[in-house]
Formats: sequence, structure tokens, C-alpha cells
Amino acid sequence: MEKSLINTIEQDVKFSEVDSLGIVWHGHYVQYFEDGREAFGKEHNLRYLDFYKQGYVVPIVSIQCDYKRVLRYGDRIIIETTYTPCEPAKINFNYRLLNAVTGELVVTGSTTQVFLSKDSFTLQLINPGFFQDWKVLQGLHETAAR
Amino acid sequence: MEKSLINTIEQDVKFSEVDSLGIVWHGHYVQYFEDGREAFGKEHNLRYLDFYKQGYVVPIVSIQCDYKRVLRYGDRIIIETTYTPCEPAKINFNYRLLNAVTGELVVTGSTTQVFLSKDSFTLQLINPGFFQDWKVLQGLHETAAR
Amino acid sequence: MEKSLINTIEQDVKFSEVDSLGIVWHGHYVQYFEDGREAFGKEHNLRYLDFYKQGYVVPIVSIQCDYKRVLRYGDRIIIETTYTPCEPAKINFNYRLLNAVTGELVVTGSTTQVFLSKDSFTLQLINPGFFQDWKVLQGLHETAAR
Amino acid sequence: MEKSLINTIEQDVKFSEVDSLGIVWHGHYVQYFEDGREAFGKEHNLRYLDFYKQGYVVPIVSIQCDYKRVLRYGDRIIIETTYTPCEPAKINFNYRLLNAVTGELVVTGSTTQVFLSKDSFTLQLINPGFFQDWKVLQGLHETAAR
Repeated sequence: MEKSLINTIEQDVKFSEVDSLGIVWHGHYVQYFEDGREAFGKEHNLRYLDFYKQGYVVPIVSIQCDYKRVLRYGDRIIIETTYTPCEPAKINFNYRLLNAVTGELVVTGSTTQVFLSKDSFTLQLINPGFFQDWKVLQGLHETAAR
Repeated sequence: MEKSLINTIEQDVKFSEVDSLGIVWHGHYVQYFEDGREAFGKEHNLRYLDFYKQGYVVPIVSIQCDYKRVLRYGDRIIIETTYTPCEPAKINFNYRLLNAVTGELVVTGSTTQVFLSKDSFTLQLINPGFFQDWKVLQGLHETAAR
Repeated sequence: MEKSLINTIEQDVKFSEVDSLGIVWHGHYVQYFEDGREAFGKEHNLRYLDFYKQGYVVPIVSIQCDYKRVLRYGDRIIIETTYTPCEPAKINFNYRLLNAVTGELVVTGSTTQVFLSKDSFTLQLINPGFFQDWKVLQGLHETAAR
Repeated sequence: MEKSLINTIEQDVKFSEVDSLGIVWHGHYVQYFEDGREAFGKEHNLRYLDFYKQGYVVPIVSIQCDYKRVLRYGDRIIIETTYTPCEPAKINFNYRLLNAVTGELVVTGSTTQVFLSKDSFTLQLINPGFFQDWKVLQGLHETAAR
């Protein structure tokens, strides 16, 4: 069974996420990205807890966010989270946030995560076996082996 | 040297703390209380880390907050944190938040914390020795023994 | 058609809501209460925006929260929000948060809101007509008139 | 009198900013950047409220953050905020966060802001007069005119 490498969720803008200009405060988009990443992880058994059980933590080492339009309280958001394969021992996601009613693109962004051993926080230079296996299962083998 | 059992700090309202009505979102006052409690702890060597080194964590088990007036972005806050002695193995604080310019009372509140052993999260039914010692040093012995 | 005066939603504990002790930070429960209140408002057309369109804002003037058990990352929460009728021009909610898997009661709490005119922030001493109408529709008339 | 174009502040890591791994959650660095930007604005009368009084809002349109090391509860942070002049009607800041005790570089980042008229949210294609004046006063005229 083929699973999509794009996960899509929808959620409402919360009252507490909106600033005094009536728009979502820019910092809350980092949480929206994490919401998307977590939904992706839930679909693929790759949530933080799954990594942890395998002996790893996967902290964010880089984040980028570009704001195109604003969201307001009462708006509904589509969060599109796309896993982007790469050869190194890293996890890259791209994000697209859309206004669910107008379909307009609101924000784009990306994150990079690395693998650390959960106890010593030592950087892993090769992909852990279970993650490499997952990539193969997704048909990402060629990409990963390039 | 006598230390006051009231700690007072001042800080600015942050842009991100204000909601679309232009006032501090009610949930952020819980953080202001923690800011006050931490400042008190810094003064008395009773921060979370100090409790932890002694083998305890001190989670909040009850919080109460009453809102009298509003704060806006640009306002400056006075946070008054008062330790209120009690005989049981609990830590009670009362809070008063004032507008630093007008002197008006903005919010009152209180919190109660208990002692848990840091490893098993077991509730402690008597005050840990180092905390009882601190109370005595503060001249709270009579109060504590009442 | 009869609508329940208890609204129930379920949601996951987010990674960012958990503190260094591995448990949900006490301040985030204020957001969970708002999540519950918003879900209730969505069911009854009584969200912040609905009040605003009628000319009112309904700030929290009092909040109380009692913590019985802890929640961890990966836990699923049930948020029960109950409207509690009262005669004065106030809105009272009670909250019960449960662990969705074990059914254990985690937190109880309550909030009180008042009606202010949206422009002058003037306190309203009687219930606005549309809100009184809603209470009658809910069969809360006797209660309200007591 | 010459003002520095680098603003430096120090602050403590808060308990609520730390996640279950015992390190500051990556999303909180966006707030640290805003803390730095606000301190810069306070020094130069260029806070959000100052822009607003002049008729403008200055939303973030791009943010980038690279994480080199971790911060823990109890750590003290140095936030260095540097204004980086540019000809277009934009405001660019670079950030460096350091561990105040070890001096180690923890995070680098940057933000870009644009000018919108406060009422219509219309994008301004040239720098507002008061901001151009400020740049000249800072001796950034040549840079700005390049």
C-alpha cells in the first residue's frame, strides 16, 4: 500500500494565536509546522516518540519561513507537509500553509532535523537502520542511494 | 540579614502577549506569575533547580487568577510575589500585578505547589528538611509550628 | 432540536506543551480551557466573533484550575466544557479534562466572563438580548429567572 | 551622539521555554529574536508603537534560524541584534544568541520586515521619511543611497 509523502491537515486559527493587528503572530507558524510534522509522523509511525523508542532524538537544526499573506481569527488553515528525501542523515520537510476558504498560499517554509543518540546527544553521520528501511519502503531507495 | 518575603519585579508587556482586542491575553498571566515565582526563588535560592538538587519537584496543584483591569502593549508591569506560610507540606504564593505607571491593580492571584520526590513523583506529606530550615531562617518558625 | 450544554472534544498533547519534567506545563491548561470554550461556541454560534458581531467582547475575569494528575506527550485529552447558567450578566463555564485512554480525571477548572461593549469596553449590567434569547431557547429560562 | 547598530541584551531561559528533552524548544527562539528587536527598537525609538504612530505596521515577511548548540533551563542568554542596512523599503536584522557563561554561539538568524500602511495594509515601495531620516542620522546615508 502506497502512502503519500505529503500529509495534509486542516485546523482553525485560535484566538490566542492572533496579535493586536488582528493577524496570526509570525512565531506561531513554527507551531503550525510542528503540527504538520506531527501529523506526518502519525501517518508514518515517525513521531518523536517513535524515534525515541529507536534510540534517537531529532532536533530541528534549521528553519526557514516566508510569509505571503495573513491569517485571521476565524480563518481555517490547510497545512501541507512534504517529506523531501536526501542522502545525508537528515530529515527535510517543506511546508505550505493555505487559507482553506480562498485557497490562497499564506506561508511557505522548511525545516531540517538531524539524528542524535538520545542519551549522549551524539550526532549520527549515517541514517539509522529503521529510517533507511522506511525510505526504501516508500520507494525512496533510488533517491536515497544517489 | 533579613530578606523580604515579598519579591517585586518590573517588566514590559511583550507584543506577542497581546491579543486582537489589544489587551494581554488572559493565559499569559500564568507566565507572569511564574516570572514572579522564579524571581522570588532566585532571591531565596528556591528556584526549580534548587528543589531538584534537593531531590524534589514542586508542581502547581492549584491556580486562581482574578482580572480587574487590562494591560496593553507598551505598558510596564509590576509583579509582586508574596510567600504565604502554611503548616502543611505546601508552598503558597499570592500575586499582585500592577500597572507601573498608573499604580492601578490589574490582577490578583494565587498558586499552591506540593513536594514530589523527583524520581517516583511520590507526594511528600511533611516539609523537606532544607525547606523547613529556610522557613525557620525567615522567622516563620512560629507560623509554621502553629 | 435540543443541544447539549456540555461540549466534549478530544485532542493530542503537543510536544511543545510538555516541560522538562515530561509533563504538560500547568499554564497550557488555560489554552485547553479556551479550546473547549471555542468548541462550545462553535456548536452554539457563541464564539468570540459571534459576540463581537453583536457588539460585545467577553473577557475572562476569573479563572480557577485544580490539577489532579499529569498529562504527557503522546497522551490524548478529553476536554468537557459545561455551560453553567446564572442570573447575572456573566458567562460561567466548568471544565473537566480527562485522560482519553485511562478515563482518569486530570484537571478541573472554571472561568467567568463578563460582557463589555466592544467599542467603549463598558461593563454590561444586564444580559444582552441575543444571549438571553439563547438561554431561553436552551430551556434555561426558569434557571435564568430564578 | 553615536548609537550602536548592535543591541545586546541578556536574559534567563525560562522554565516554560524548555521541552521534555531539557532544551529550549526551537520555536521559542522566534520570541528571543523579537525580544532583541524590541530592545533595539527601544534604544532607537523604533518600536512597533513608534512605527504605528507614524502610520505604519512592519510585519515579518521572512525568518531564518540556524541552531548550533542547545540552551537549558538555568542558562543565561546573550541576544545580539544587528540592524543591516539595505536600499529597498525593508528592515533587516541579524541575530546571534550566545551562552552568557561559556560564550558559545547557540543560534544565528535573520528577519526581514516590510512597511505597510497601518489602515489599508498597503505595501510601501519606498522607505518612509522618518525611517530614511533615522538611517541618515546613523551615518547609513551612503549605504542607503548606493
